[in-house]
Formats: sequence, structure tokens, C-alpha cells
Amino acid sequence: MTSSDDVQQAPVKAPAKDPWDLPDVSGLVVGVLGGTGDQGRGLAYRLARAGQKVIVGSRAADRARTAAEEIGHGVEGAENAECARRSDIVIVAVPWDGHAKTLEALRDDLAGKLVVDCVNPLGFDKKGAYALVPDEGSAAEQAAALLPDSRVTAAFHHLSAVLLQDEAIDEIDTDVMVLGESRADTDQVQALAARIPGMRGVFAGRLRNAHQVESLVANLISVNRRYKVHAGLRVTDI
Amino acid sequence: MTSSDDVQQAPVKAPAKDPWDLPDVSGLVVGVLGGTGDQGRGLAYRLARAGQKVIVGSRAADRARTAAEEIGHGVEGAENAECARRSDIVIVAVPWDGHAKTLEALRDDLAGKLVVDCVNPLGFDKKGAYALVPDEGSAAEQAAALLPDSRVTAAFHHLSAVLLQDEAIDEIDTDVMVLGESRADTDQVQALAARIPGMRGVFAGRLRNAHQVESLVANLISVNRRYKVHAGLRVTDI
Repeated sequence: MTSSDDVQQAPVKAPAKDPWDLPDVSGLVVGVLGGTGDQGRGLAYRLARAGQKVIVGSRAADRARTAAEEIGHGVEGAENAECARRSDIVIVAVPWDGHAKTLEALRDDLAGKLVVDCVNPLGFDKKGAYALVPDEGSAAEQAAALLPDSRVTAAFHHLSAVLLQDEAIDEIDTDVMVLGESRADTDQVQALAARIPGMRGVFAGRLRNAHQVESLVANLISVNRRYKVHAGLRVTDI
Repeated sequence: MTSSDDVQQAPVKAPAKDPWDLPDVSGLVVGVLGGTGDQGRGLAYRLARAGQKVIVGSRAADRARTAAEEIGHGVEGAENAECARRSDIVIVAVPWDGHAKTLEALRDDLAGKLVVDCVNPLGFDKKGAYALVPDEGSAAEQAAALLPDSRVTAAFHHLSAVLLQDEAIDEIDTDVMVLGESRADTDQVQALAARIPGMRGVFAGRLRNAHQVESLVANLISVNRRYKVHAGLRVTDI
């Protein structure tokens, strides 16, 4: 079988840059599309609490503003297009059902932006959750196809919205797998994840390998059900 | 978007059995098909070192016996069919290329056995590793389709063969995601994983969710390349 360390035999090209040498993103504005949903709200809360300027987006500006007030920590609310335009980094946390339609409508507003897709395309039936397979391969690849003028990455898939939103919890003990085509982009997303205490952003491949990261949430749901927990993931040996 | 803890809202049926109440598997014989490859050899070594009776299988009995002697710890070698027949639990660690053919030929020998598939169907090109999608959905589902009289599970996907085979390492700091349709079967595989110091077997869903677990190895390969490590996974909050 194929082992994960087969790659160790690949030829090494140049002295590698320290993978933990990440840029300062503390001054960037972060938008969260779908910021009124549980996951978006949880991420907005954690980032704002860590000192990041955050704007939550929604289809309806008043719903976004209500959510922003509830989150506090200086979070603002805006209609999705304004949220996108005013942000440097835009996290996509909308339901899978509305993913394509939402992004298509925001193509111009998201031009030039660093987009972070964290959507997990899943189906549910009596046996639990299972992976859906988007035509493009993954939600992230769908985003990349729909947003040719944006810098699309994928991250923040395996977080528990319950833990993110629990104000009594100070640290989120998990790694965030970050995928993308450009190192400059994935470095920024890793740095953003690292703003949240306990969280670490780990580069985990190109967008063509996003499907398994997205759909692994189906497995974490099984873990949650069996063990009555809010499971996350840590990458070992790094 | 869908959060991994949405399932918390599902109705709870009966008082749950303690998920850590696992059976004693120390008396069972473990066969490793593909036991002369790096991953199979590493698993055979770790299990035998932990006191498990292990038989490594290969297409050629003499190659199997040579590998067994090199591994030590009482490991025996045998041709695949004999390895299967003499074992209670059979780990499938053959290359993906030969997966279907090998299992098809062993259908009768594997009847009634607990089969643990740990094969990762991956392709490689200049950009690194990527997931292959078997017609059946995953290697594990292919095994289940080819072995109707066996109890097929999936586990041991994310292990580093380098770490497994390094005699200087006493503990393998990782969780093993275990998938299957029957709790009795997955409990046995979890118990087997837990025989190896540092390792923990975690139930992580049904076989229909095996593809993402298998193909996540492509992401771990990216991690290994970026960070110069032998990455594994831990599930948090359990």
C-alpha cells in the first residue's frame, strides 16, 4: 500500500523556507459570509475576540447587524456584497445548498480578495452523514471555478460550532488544515487561524485534495455521536 | 454550512455502551497481507512487539518467511492464502494496484474472518499525491464487495511506515480511525490498535465514509513535505 511518507524519497530542490514563518495578518479585515449561521458566527466571534476586525455578512443587512451586535467585540454586520467589498479576507461559511449561487452573485465583490472556503458538502439520512461529491470535486474547487479573480483557499472545516460559540472556553484545541494553490495565500490563512488561542493553521495540500478534508466532517459526526463529544483534529509530529 | 456537531440535536435512543469498553483481542492471530511492504511490515512489527501473534503474508512464501525473520518477535511468514486461513484478523496492506485481484483470489480463505483494509488509493504526479476514486467508492467498500462472507472494516490508514519500523521509537503517538458496519467488528479493531503503545483506535463511521479517510493520506503527504515530518492524526475532545 501507499504510505504517507513515501514522499520522503522525492528529491529536495531548494532550502525550504521555515513553514512557521507566517505573515502578520492582525491588521486585515475579515468578512464572514454566512456569518449568521452557527459556524460563521462562531468563527466571527473567535476572530473578533482575538482582536481581528470582523464583518459578518448575510443576505439581509438587518439580520447581519443583529448577529454582529449579539457577537460583540466590535463585529459589524452588512449585506453579503458590502461585507465582501470591505474585507481583505473573506470566509465562506454559507450552507452548501446556497454555495454556488451565493458566490456567483458576489464574483465582482470578491475579485482580488483572499477567499477561505470552509463549506462541507454533506448529505444526511437515517444512517447519519455522508459525503456529497460536487461536480467540481469539492466546495473549494467550485469556489475557485466560480471566482476566477479571487485567491481561493480552503480551511476551518473541522471546527465545532458549539465550542467556537462557548464563551466559557478560552482555547480551541485543534489544528486547521489549510489548502490552496499559492503559498502566500495559505500562509495568510494559517496566520489567521493562529490568531485564535489554541488553534494552529497547518498547510495540508492543494485544492484538488480538498474533497476529503471537507467530507471528513461526516466522520467527525460519527465520532461525536459515539463519544458524545465535539471532536476536532490535531496533526502529530509537527 | 454544516457543522460537525449538528448531530447533537438528533434524538438519543438508549443508554449508550461505554465506547472504551473494548474486547480482549490479545489471544487472536493477526495476519498481514502485504506484510513484506513497508506499511504491512511496520504494522506487523508493532503488533508482534506488543505481544500479538502475527503472520505476514506474501504472494511468495519464501519472501514472507524472510520478512518474518527480519521482523522477529515470533512473527511467522506464509503465502497469502495460508496467512489468511490461519488468522482471526487479517489486515490488508497490499498495494492499491493489486488490491482487487488479491482479495478476489482469497475470498474463500477470508470467509468468516475480520478483515481490516488499510489501503489508500492514491495517484501521483508532478504536483504530488491525489485521491483515486474506486468504482465502489473506496478500497474498503471494494473489499466489502469482493468479500461477501468476511466482516470488512477499515483502519490504520494514517500511519507512517518510517515511524512504525523505527525500533528506537517506543510509542506511536496517533489515533487510528476505525470504520465498519458492525460495532462488534470495529470494537475488535479498536482494541487491536490500542495494543500498540501510544495508539488509540477511534470509531469514525461506516464504510461509506471510508473514501475521505483513505484519501486524506494525500494531505498528510503534503504535510510531510512542507514540514519535513511523519504526520499522523489525533482526534481531540475524546
